[in-house]
Amino acid sequence: MNLLKDKILTDGHAIGSNILKVDSFLNHQIDVKLLDEIGKVFYERFKEDRITKILTIEASGIALAVITAQYFDNIPVVFAKKTESLNLDKDLYTSEVYSFTKNKSYKIMVSKKYINSTDRILIIDDFLANGKAILGLKEIIDQANATLAGAGIVIEKGFQEGGDIIRDMGIKIESLAIIDSIEDGVVTFKN
Amino acid sequence: MNLLKDKILTDGHAIGSNILKVDSFLNHQIDVKLLDEIGKVFYERFKEDRITKILTIEASGIALAVITAQYFDNIPVVFAKKTESLNLDKDLYTSEVYSFTKNKSYKIMVSKKYINSTDRILIIDDFLANGKAILGLKEIIDQANATLAGAGIVIEKGFQEGGDIIRDMGIKIESLAIIDSIEDGVVTFKN
Repeated sequence: MNLLKDKILTDGHAIGSNILKVDSFLNHQIDVKLLDEIGKVFYERFKEDRITKILTIEASGIALAVITAQYFDNIPVVFAKKTESLNLDKDLYTSEVYSFTKNKSYKIMVSKKYINSTDRILIIDDFLANGKAILGLKEIIDQANATLAGAGIVIEKGFQEGGDIIRDMGIKIESLAIIDSIEDGVVTFKN
Repeated sequence: MNLLKDKILTDGHAIGSNILKVDSFLNHQIDVKLLDEIGKVFYERFKEDRITKILTIEASGIALAVITAQYFDNIPVVFAKKTESLNLDKDLYTSEVYSFTKNKSYKIMVSKKYINSTDRILIIDDFLANGKAILGLKEIIDQANATLAGAGIVIEKGFQEGGDIIRDMGIKIESLAIIDSIEDGVVTFKN
């Protein structure tokens, strides 16, 4: 997706050999017009997959998920929660995710009421690096006996192992920008 | 907003005299079509206020904020973060918020890059109860010398003090459903 790659090159901020900051348009300040274009492309890539629900993790995935859902005739979005709350059900699917950027593991939770065995689920997330977030969400989808129809990712760090791990499991992944390398703050995309 | 009030009565779950769970359509599973109607109403209520940016707090406010922003010609959304991250700037506006539903205080952070003195900011959030979230965001807006143009709230707990405190400060608040009381799990709205 060229619009996205241009945005990453102009407004992203690459540091060292691993970090790409996109907080000016994706995960702190949000460029709503760009997200609309992203949602449209996700729809094109998954429109034949009979998606019934979009699943993501708070917080950065939520904006992407709801705008994508608009293209899928407003199907429901469910976001996995990271923290307990008085207002959250006790009857939950749970799994564990390791976050590279936060350098710790955290529990994710989805109420059993909101995923069931008839669902064909599209996972939407901002980054794919080590693949732990998708694997954690897949565990929850498996617990519900639902079907994981695919995963739509905005930015994949192609130099980390997550993409290979998930594709080797036979899961359909569509990444809109795949980064081949970050070297001294310079981003190179995979063709 | 009658569509919202009907949804609260049919799909909300009131418990005791204080708790209203709306996780089936607002803050865990998301009814994207309803959010679209909510965004449209927020636009009607604030379209004369020369809004330049929408500010919310992760996670529940994000979906509301981006869909509302679509009606304001895709102005940027900024969501305050609750947790530190390797990818977050060190140059931040911060304040402290006490959460009733989580029963603890937490820090909120906004990068100084994303709010400035020319901004006229609309705060969007799912609930108004004790008012602490709006006051925390207002503190950040004040630190940036930006203007708080108003706050759009989906559900106000009219029996708690937040609404009065914020209105007494002269801040324009538009709450789409104001709850007068919750008694033995029965919700009554203010007219």
